[in-house]
Amino acid sequence: MNHGTPRAHLAPARSGVPEHGRVPKYYLVKAQLEDLITELGPGGRLPTEAELAERHGVARATLRQALRELLLEGRLRRRGRGTVVAGPKIEQPLALASYTEGVTRQGLRPGRTLIALDRLPADAVLAERLGIDQGRPLWHLERVLRADEERVGLESTYVPVARVPDLERDFDPEGSFCGYLRERGVHLGGAEERIETVLATPREALLIGTPPALPMLLLHRRSRDAAGRPLEQVRTLYRGDRFSFTLDLHAPTAE
Amino acid sequence: MNHGTPRAHLAPARSGVPEHGRVPKYYLVKAQLEDLITELGPGGRLPTEAELAERHGVARATLRQALRELLLEGRLRRRGRGTVVAGPKIEQPLALASYTEGVTRQGLRPGRTLIALDRLPADAVLAERLGIDQGRPLWHLERVLRADEERVGLESTYVPVARVPDLERDFDPEGSFCGYLRERGVHLGGAEERIETVLATPREALLIGTPPALPMLLLHRRSRDAAGRPLEQVRTLYRGDRFSFTLDLHAPTAE
Repeated sequence: MNHGTPRAHLAPARSGVPEHGRVPKYYLVKAQLEDLITELGPGGRLPTEAELAERHGVARATLRQALRELLLEGRLRRRGRGTVVAGPKIEQPLALASYTEGVTRQGLRPGRTLIALDRLPADAVLAERLGIDQGRPLWHLERVLRADEERVGLESTYVPVARVPDLERDFDPEGSFCGYLRERGVHLGGAEERIETVLATPREALLIGTPPALPMLLLHRRSRDAAGRPLEQVRTLYRGDRFSFTLDLHAPTAE
Repeated sequence: MNHGTPRAHLAPARSGVPEHGRVPKYYLVKAQLEDLITELGPGGRLPTEAELAERHGVARATLRQALRELLLEGRLRRRGRGTVVAGPKIEQPLALASYTEGVTRQGLRPGRTLIALDRLPADAVLAERLGIDQGRPLWHLERVLRADEERVGLESTYVPVARVPDLERDFDPEGSFCGYLRERGVHLGGAEERIETVLATPREALLIGTPPALPMLLLHRRSRDAAGRPLEQVRTLYRGDRFSFTLDLHAPTAE
């Protein structure tokens, strides 16, 4: 039952139970906890582990495996020393619009925390991606993404220094980099994106404040300016338990 | 280091190692194995677990945790009783184009295995999604997706029976459902998609042949016909270790 959100959603047709009956015990408990989650609704507080283990007649370790998966999937969240039912995942539109716009549209307050702003020479991969010579200077801007003070992602932006020579001096690291570019007359013309799921590294987990090995959504993006020249290469890691991506597709008007 | 593919790629800026030095031992081994993976290249066979544990001076359990993450991330694959370096992930374009077209573009042979073709009454959620009355009959088509005989995904398609009354009689379950619709003069006009990462349920893991709790990419899609009416609701689960999604974004031509 891996619908990621607590709202009414399309569950898998047969709810995760193999037909030949080899159902792990933790999984049965998980299914029962999902009913409890639906009953409690977002923000509802779960009974303690001890209480739940007794109620379901399983060992604490079995109960914890069920809770762990529900936490990883974003159905539950830790709050203080307790566990509560999570709200829906944040829906981030796959569009040229920035993180600011996506999160604001959800009624959340976007924020960013600067981790590093470095100047480094372009290696072979970045030089190729950005259409510059190897060794040319790049800015590397690394920031934790926040939504309503919660840490939800980690973003690395690589941009040639020649494009924004004064970045270190006049960029507000809490602000939108897209907005900064726009103010300087640089407009996005397009982008190629690639999405995959990866596990958080220990460093990433530490920076974002997640359990290690949480499945994350990783978005690679190369943006172009209005003239079609590569502008920036971005690597954004979003908490898999807190984010989904949305997209509207349209058939070409003339076929 | 969670670049998902073995080709030259943008690794996280600081390779997963927390600055204050609390690096789990398995993670150091994982970083060393990644160097070995790069050296061996796709298809290269890893030494046995016993050999690797000895070489890195760690317990078998520590080594296995490093291998497990590399397997989940699609850097390694099991082959027979051994472990080999995986090729790049399949890049599936986020477009109206079907699975067939996406996989074929990668030089792979797409295939499908029928799990179930059922006729069922629309529940409240599906009725709303498909713009029909609750209780109206739907086809539910469930198929395992294959690429070159490897099982890579699981797809559930829900479509009103009224749209394709003869589905059970004249649809080849190995074939493309999009193609079937096209042959009947039904063309896709657009779709809304939502992407998230979830863990495979035991049943899904069994059907796709993956380790349980493998992170998957889950794509929800509602397609519309050329007149804008809802046509089908699809839930596709792709192996997270084998797939990435790609997308080209363009700024509106007139701003």
